[in-house]
Amino acid sequence: MSGRIYDVIIIGGGPAGLSAGIYASRERISTLLLEKGMCGGLLTVADLIENYPGFPNGIKGMDLVNKFKEQAKRFGTEIVELKEVKEIKPVDGNIMVKTDKEEYSSHALIAASGTIPRKLGIPGEKQYTGKGVSYCATCDGPLFKNKDIVVVGGGNAAVEEALFLTKFAGKIIFVHRRYELRAAKILQENLRRDKKIELLLNHKLISIAGDKTVNSVNVFDNHTKKQTKFEVSGVFIYAGFLPNSKFLEGIVEFDDSGYIKVDGKMQTQTPGIFAAGDICSKNVRQVTTACAEGTIAAMSVRDYLKKER
Amino acid sequence: MSGRIYDVIIIGGGPAGLSAGIYASRERISTLLLEKGMCGGLLTVADLIENYPGFPNGIKGMDLVNKFKEQAKRFGTEIVELKEVKEIKPVDGNIMVKTDKEEYSSHALIAASGTIPRKLGIPGEKQYTGKGVSYCATCDGPLFKNKDIVVVGGGNAAVEEALFLTKFAGKIIFVHRRYELRAAKILQENLRRDKKIELLLNHKLISIAGDKTVNSVNVFDNHTKKQTKFEVSGVFIYAGFLPNSKFLEGIVEFDDSGYIKVDGKMQTQTPGIFAAGDICSKNVRQVTTACAEGTIAAMSVRDYLKKER
Repeated sequence: MSGRIYDVIIIGGGPAGLSAGIYASRERISTLLLEKGMCGGLLTVADLIENYPGFPNGIKGMDLVNKFKEQAKRFGTEIVELKEVKEIKPVDGNIMVKTDKEEYSSHALIAASGTIPRKLGIPGEKQYTGKGVSYCATCDGPLFKNKDIVVVGGGNAAVEEALFLTKFAGKIIFVHRRYELRAAKILQENLRRDKKIELLLNHKLISIAGDKTVNSVNVFDNHTKKQTKFEVSGVFIYAGFLPNSKFLEGIVEFDDSGYIKVDGKMQTQTPGIFAAGDICSKNVRQVTTACAEGTIAAMSVRDYLKKER
Repeated sequence: MSGRIYDVIIIGGGPAGLSAGIYASRERISTLLLEKGMCGGLLTVADLIENYPGFPNGIKGMDLVNKFKEQAKRFGTEIVELKEVKEIKPVDGNIMVKTDKEEYSSHALIAASGTIPRKLGIPGEKQYTGKGVSYCATCDGPLFKNKDIVVVGGGNAAVEEALFLTKFAGKIIFVHRRYELRAAKILQENLRRDKKIELLLNHKLISIAGDKTVNSVNVFDNHTKKQTKFEVSGVFIYAGFLPNSKFLEGIVEFDDSGYIKVDGKMQTQTPGIFAAGDICSKNVRQVTTACAEGTIAAMSVRDYLKKER
């Protein structure tokens, strides 16, 4: 462990964490940002972001990430990638942050570690992950050129990614368990208009089968109670998300789903620990809201540090 | 009055209103945005915005506004500038919006009409706004690296912003018209402790002069009745903000200062009327938070319209 104590450690390099970095650094707060993979969070798996204000023609997810990152660095945020936080421990009024091999220390903490895709938990899903089953169209879409695939889900992510996949795939079977999609209307229109996409509402995916890689799925019709087998090479799953908050268990308060409870100042019930972005218990999870929460968390850290000194 | 009833009318074309426009239009909600001047809100008074994530080298306030505006238009927001809303009236379950000459009608409303900085009303103030005179240290502070400036005010904002400005400015002359500051004691202590700051109590700024940009100010000593000229490059004025909410008097609930009270969904106490951005009763007023609130308000309008139909 290095002797240095940072003013704040931010965990997670998505929009919330990087925005917190921008604001904290501009306040001349010494800031370390730890990211378990490469910066970007869910932005990295999005092809084109059209609803983040400031980019009228949309912007590639990775391009937006790189701008956020450059901006945080410019003002002095120290960013360390490929460091997964395993444990948080309040020690002597400071906060100790443990990764696999390192320990870091800070006066305050902002948890912005986001979410991970939820699994369906159906036969074949785990076995074929990376062998036809994917949670990221941007990453894996090009592997399915002219091949038939299934997309599962009903929200913005599912529809956006299905539309993106039409660039590569042959036929796309879009399976949603309810009668109505949750996605934005403009996305639903584009989905229904696309001739490559066959929409199966009120259906659910019940199993994935294959050889070395996926070659079929079984889909259950909730209405007729009949099963149909589809021959496909790929399965893209957008079944929601789970909070990436395990390392904070027992340290801060969660809601029933494991999201972190915060007040209007992004403060958790534990003094000195703040949270921002998708990991928070809330309704709207967008890039805009993540950035705002990062902003507010950084401002609250500033006020907290002032009081402590 | 045209017979058309919009799904939602947004009042105000700053970051909150334009973000609400982007999100509402993407939901295929018919959206009219009325702006009393030209779109932009407080962004128009900021030269370089350095803290809005996505623009690592900063972006001119007006350039950012134009991007927001183009994006909202692209998805279908109808923007009408130079229409000041004078009155709001719930009529037959809809909302009637009156400007000087027109009447518009909608099912829901988002008030995003922001605030206006309280002006001192002294010679040079208007002429040099954006040319040395600023109402936002967070926006413009870094432009005054090693330069001498004046800060005017006596409340928390003035002191906080003066302290923030010590990171950049050379010398700071802090001018307050009374003998005592209104700011919290701890802030006053920090102010007095700072060697960069010269405190002029019982003084008032009486004029601002310059060439293309500010180069001096005249300060009047209320006690000795003497005037002193100070050579400075910047003047930061914190005479408070005023919520631009008069047209909603009696329609929605205000806090004691006239800001609109909202819940976590940006809903006012009046069904169908939402608010977003600086006009809301809250702590942090930044572009990021305005965009997030615009996003959330639009999502809430979508949900509200679904329920109503």
